[in-house]
Amino acid sequence: MVGKIRRLVLDTLKPMEPNIIEMANSLSTLSGVSAVNISIAEIDLKVENAKITIEGDDLNYNEVKDIIEDMGGSIHSIDEVVAGKMIIDDAATLQD
Amino acid sequence: MVGKIRRLVLDTLKPMEPNIIEMANSLSTLSGVSAVNISIAEIDLKVENAKITIEGDDLNYNEVKDIIEDMGGSIHSIDEVVAGKMIIDDAATLQD
Amino acid sequence: MVGKIRRLVLDTLKPMEPNIIEMANSLSTLSGVSAVNISIAEIDLKVENAKITIEGDDLNYNEVKDIIEDMGGSIHSIDEVVAGKMIIDDAATLQD
Amino acid sequence: MVGKIRRLVLDTLKPMEPNIIEMANSLSTLSGVSAVNISIAEIDLKVENAKITIEGDDLNYNEVKDIIEDMGGSIHSIDEVVAGKMIIDDAATLQD
Amino acid sequence: MVGKIRRLVLDTLKPMEPNIIEMANSLSTLSGVSAVNISIAEIDLKVENAKITIEGDDLNYNEVKDIIEDMGGSIHSIDEVVAGKMIIDDAATLQD
Amino acid sequence: MVGKIRRLVLDTLKPMEPNIIEMANSLSTLSGVSAVNISIAEIDLKVENAKITIEGDDLNYNEVKDIIEDMGGSIHSIDEVVAGKMIIDDAATLQD
Amino acid sequence: MVGKIRRLVLDTLKPMEPNIIEMANSLSTLSGVSAVNISIAEIDLKVENAKITIEGDDLNYNEVKDIIEDMGGSIHSIDEVVAGKMIIDDAATLQD
Repeated sequence: MVGKIRRLVLDTLKPMEPNIIEMANSLSTLSGVSAVNISIAEIDLKVENAKITIEGDDLNYNEVKDIIEDMGGSIHSIDEVVAGKMIIDDAATLQD
Repeated sequence: MVGKIRRLVLDTLKPMEPNIIEMANSLSTLSGVSAVNISIAEIDLKVENAKITIEGDDLNYNEVKDIIEDMGGSIHSIDEVVAGKMIIDDAATLQD
Repeated sequence: MVGKIRRLVLDTLKPMEPNIIEMANSLSTLSGVSAVNISIAEIDLKVENAKITIEGDDLNYNEVKDIIEDMGGSIHSIDEVVAGKMIIDDAATLQD
Repeated sequence: MVGKIRRLVLDTLKPMEPNIIEMANSLSTLSGVSAVNISIAEIDLKVENAKITIEGDDLNYNEVKDIIEDMGGSIHSIDEVVAGKMIIDDAATLQD
Repeated sequence: MVGKIRRLVLDTLKPMEPNIIEMANSLSTLSGVSAVNISIAEIDLKVENAKITIEGDDLNYNEVKDIIEDMGGSIHSIDEVVAGKMIIDDAATLQD
Repeated sequence: MVGKIRRLVLDTLKPMEPNIIEMANSLSTLSGVSAVNISIAEIDLKVENAKITIEGDDLNYNEVKDIIEDMGGSIHSIDEVVAGKMIIDDAATLQD
Repeated sequence: MVGKIRRLVLDTLKPMEPNIIEMANSLSTLSGVSAVNISIAEIDLKVENAKITIEGDDLNYNEVKDIIEDMGGSIHSIDEVVAGKMIIDDAATLQD
């Protein structure tokens, strides 16, 4: 049985153009996607470090990756993944 | 298929006049806009650094940009964009 | 089309008298005002630095300004404005 | 038209007796008062610095003041007032 | 007219025995009490500094005091009292 | 009249085996227990410092203590107890 | 009577491949699992430190452990366990 990916949080690097509006737009039209939040962590001269949060009921990582790379971006790391019947946050523990 | 932009967060620089009431007013009448929040980060003698949060069901960035520029302002950066069927915040991760 | 101002946050300086009860009272009776919160940031000998938050469905800045000035106060800055169909806070971003 | 005071936050100094239970009790029976919270900020030998939060639908400051003074207390400052149709907190802004 | 005490927060010192389970149990059976929270701030060799939060619809301070003292404890200070028709917290202000 | 214990928060020391899954399992089957949260504060070579939060409608401390001790653990301190008709947290005050 | 494990929070070390999407996917298909959150705490050259939060109505630790180990990972510690009829967080106390 294959699970359903509900949330992806990606740390990415992308060129200034196309801008994050176009990238959010494209990502949001992928099947299984409910919403996309792109938040800029840092901006250098030609590139920006973007944190991408995607939520939905059946996300496809490879399709997401293709769009980001087609727009000249690269995924630096997958910071969080949520799978299953619903979205949960990581539980705060005394170790954090 | 074109996605729907639900939230824009812009870092802008604007002259003291027209003030942020007039700018918020104008931006709020754009089609697809539900609400506009303009919060002042810093004030210098002649300019103010304004953080503009716009939420709605189908935002048009170029129309927003035109209004800001018509009022003598400039968009320093697009800090956050949300697209899709609803608004989500970026998910807090252990990397933040 | 004219938008509707839903929230105003003002940084003001006012004499100790009349006190903030009278000022809140007067501001709250303006048409379009639902509620007024006046919170004191600092008190000097003769003046107090008051943060005024006004919320409603159709605020008129000039009427607000008149009342504050009639009571001997002055608006140091307009710190936040919200316009549109509802009140939203500024969206916290990684840049804050 | 006279507005309605919905919340008062007072910084007061009071003798140890009568204690804050008696003061809260008396204040809570004033007409227009829904609830009274008295929280002690500091205690010296003979006096205590009490923060008094009063909420209701039509607060009368002078009646409040009389009760506090009848019990040997004094109002050091009025820190917050809310007037209008409902209670709102001050809106957090980038200036805070 | 006598008001109703809805919440009491007491700073107390008590011997290790009887423990806070017995004290919470006894306090919770007083008329007018809905719930009792006893949280330990500090433990020394023979005594513990306990913060006691009691909520209900008509608390009787003297009955509370008797139980604490009958169990060898003492009330160091009354840190917060709420009276009236409901429980409210102290309102956070810019002065805090 | 005997009150009902609704929450217990215990600071405990336990050997690595049996692990906290077995301990949580056993504690959760005690009558009157709704849920058990065991969160690890610190781990040494052979022992771990576990914070145990137990909630329910009629907790029996001695039964809890027996299970912990049967599994080689010891209760270092009872950090919080809630008794009565419902669970309340300690009320944050200006003294905290 | 055997209790039901409702939440597991594990501190794990895993090789970069397979990535956390595959691991979350596999874990989410285990019986009794509602959702899985894998959040990356740290990344080294070849391994990543992953915090795994699993929630459901009847979690089986050994099945979870098998999947993590089959994918080349190891459980460094069990940081939190919740058992019983529902999920509760650890109660914040004055000791934390």
